[in-house]
Amino acid sequence: MQITEIRESAVRLESKLRNAAFSFDEMTTSIVAVKTDVVRKGTPVVGYAFNSTGRYACGAQIRDRLAPRVIKAQSAGNLSIDPAEFDPQAILAAMMVGEKPGGDMERSVGIGTVEVAIWDAVAKISGLPAYQLIADRYRGGAVSPDVFCYVGGGWYLPGKGIPQLLDEVQRYLDWGYTLIKIKVGGVPLEEDIARIEAVLKVLGDPKRLALDANCGIGPDRRTAYAQAIKPYGLRWFEEPAHPVDYRGNADFIEAYGGAVATGENLFSVEDVVNLARYGGMRPGLDIIQCDTPQSYGIGTLARMLAALQPMGWSAKDVLPHGGNMMSLNFAAGFGLGMCEAYPDAFGVFSGYTDDLQLRDGILRVGDWTGFGFERQNDLFGLMQKVG
Amino acid sequence: MQITEIRESAVRLESKLRNAAFSFDEMTTSIVAVKTDVVRKGTPVVGYAFNSTGRYACGAQIRDRLAPRVIKAQSAGNLSIDPAEFDPQAILAAMMVGEKPGGDMERSVGIGTVEVAIWDAVAKISGLPAYQLIADRYRGGAVSPDVFCYVGGGWYLPGKGIPQLLDEVQRYLDWGYTLIKIKVGGVPLEEDIARIEAVLKVLGDPKRLALDANCGIGPDRRTAYAQAIKPYGLRWFEEPAHPVDYRGNADFIEAYGGAVATGENLFSVEDVVNLARYGGMRPGLDIIQCDTPQSYGIGTLARMLAALQPMGWSAKDVLPHGGNMMSLNFAAGFGLGMCEAYPDAFGVFSGYTDDLQLRDGILRVGDWTGFGFERQNDLFGLMQKVG
Repeated sequence: MQITEIRESAVRLESKLRNAAFSFDEMTTSIVAVKTDVVRKGTPVVGYAFNSTGRYACGAQIRDRLAPRVIKAQSAGNLSIDPAEFDPQAILAAMMVGEKPGGDMERSVGIGTVEVAIWDAVAKISGLPAYQLIADRYRGGAVSPDVFCYVGGGWYLPGKGIPQLLDEVQRYLDWGYTLIKIKVGGVPLEEDIARIEAVLKVLGDPKRLALDANCGIGPDRRTAYAQAIKPYGLRWFEEPAHPVDYRGNADFIEAYGGAVATGENLFSVEDVVNLARYGGMRPGLDIIQCDTPQSYGIGTLARMLAALQPMGWSAKDVLPHGGNMMSLNFAAGFGLGMCEAYPDAFGVFSGYTDDLQLRDGILRVGDWTGFGFERQNDLFGLMQKVG
Repeated sequence: MQITEIRESAVRLESKLRNAAFSFDEMTTSIVAVKTDVVRKGTPVVGYAFNSTGRYACGAQIRDRLAPRVIKAQSAGNLSIDPAEFDPQAILAAMMVGEKPGGDMERSVGIGTVEVAIWDAVAKISGLPAYQLIADRYRGGAVSPDVFCYVGGGWYLPGKGIPQLLDEVQRYLDWGYTLIKIKVGGVPLEEDIARIEAVLKVLGDPKRLALDANCGIGPDRRTAYAQAIKPYGLRWFEEPAHPVDYRGNADFIEAYGGAVATGENLFSVEDVVNLARYGGMRPGLDIIQCDTPQSYGIGTLARMLAALQPMGWSAKDVLPHGGNMMSLNFAAGFGLGMCEAYPDAFGVFSGYTDDLQLRDGILRVGDWTGFGFERQNDLFGLMQKVG
């Protein structure tokens, strides 16, 4: 069983969305195809992944350094896709040859995307869903099949006012979502408060609304946001400070009191440990978010969970970033707290299998093999063009 | 005055060196040329820079995102190379359009290299050395012309034993260096101790020897290294822990007591502030190292120094990483503590102008314009091929 080729292609997201920190106008993502010589159901197994959303395509790194290192390690007998020998740490070690410590993101996105695509291949070789392969390795086989799924929306768009925001919220409710997250910080505080109050009138329960500042609220506005939003008792407030401004995060938490979520812009075990150590985060109340294809992959998510555990954090306190089949499989396989969906954003790179039905805010995993990309017609069409 | 084109070319370092963490076998660097329509002494001004050493070439980012954004901002009137209007913050802001907060290194190397090359162009347009342009902007014109320069060496190489290490040290002494840094952590502790004792016999004063672990000593060996090396009273111990393992750094400092240096693998103001906050570092004793072309450029080094100042750190406590004309100009312009040289490593990418003489361990800056690359015959030949 051999990887025969690793291919990458960059695709534009074609999104005009904007949050408090930046717009997605130029954003691209890398689709990776890991081709193998293993045949299942008459065709060679190919593992796929893409680097989630919000970080640019990383094809140069994959072509120049990462893919050749995987092939070299395989030739040397240090890396195998045979399910009996498959070792995520060996895959990481192979791709980290010649890399200086620290400064992770330049390679963690490429490494994570290749690693996740290799998991897709190994799951297909095993005839298993990716969530089952994850659960078998890290949880003694225990899968959490019902994954609560919230919806991320409420983006800023040119000409979008409160009526359009409420239309959007109503659409999510009609589709069956029960917890909705909207952006904040991209307009003056009083405008955000008006948006929050309008949405709360529709949702009723404040625990059905979460906010996302995307690190776009500077220290000058942070306390005002904490104080103004605290009384509403919302589900969570996301990314109140720069991703590694741990003191800024802790100061916000002290002023705000309610639940805070952050972490999607951390890229290593060390970063996540620093957040838990210095960020004022409270296990059981606050939420740590991880973007696994962007942060070295599934083996590293397992190491993050293991590093967090002695500090009081359980898998339930961790959410995967990115509303796609990868994050759904991570959530079911590791028993993470919930997953997210972006039905109005990122085109084919958000969403689940075409036949997956949301019931009372819950997605139940199916009997796909690998991550189940084959059941996403439009996305899989793009993937097949890559390799 | 306009930038007409930004070009990049990747060059292999052709180095077989190894430290405790990794080898340089595959390492590349990006040479950047910022071409302008300004004519000085009969030829168009071109600004040059390269992304120091230890991080791979970043041409894809420069070509796909960073260079087009600079040209776009210039067309919109938001960025100028006219010395009267030149604003490093505007250059950074232009290149950060469309970038998510955090995860800096994927872009900070490209942004820093382009930014430093623009400084080279603006200094040449002004007819000034880069150190003078830096001092004029950030220190009211005060230049520190005499820069103490230590030498970094003592790498691990196949077949290199203590006799070869002592030959190397003697060569540095013959060239006029008075402070020498050698690698540690790449062999068992007792072998490193033998290397240290052998070098100390040649150097005499323990304050003439520094050590560099390159983050390659894991938590399991760290305390043993601290305890074994503490009694020698050496100049400093570099990178005892992973770059963002602030607690690991602080724990080492507590066990070791002597001066510690770290920071060359940090890439943002936030990272440097975290090191100062959480890393156990002691202003006036320990050393913070910055690699400016790798961490957003000269404007960001100025912001780092400004952020460190209220925490008790002065420019003298900060050293530039990378022994080249960029770091020498940074040291003289900002009044940094010293600079470093790698006469045996990194080929044309290390070293100073061909005519620069070291006297008693001190380099005196000359009357070059820009960074003075034109006086490095071999390097400048490579640069001219780029643009």
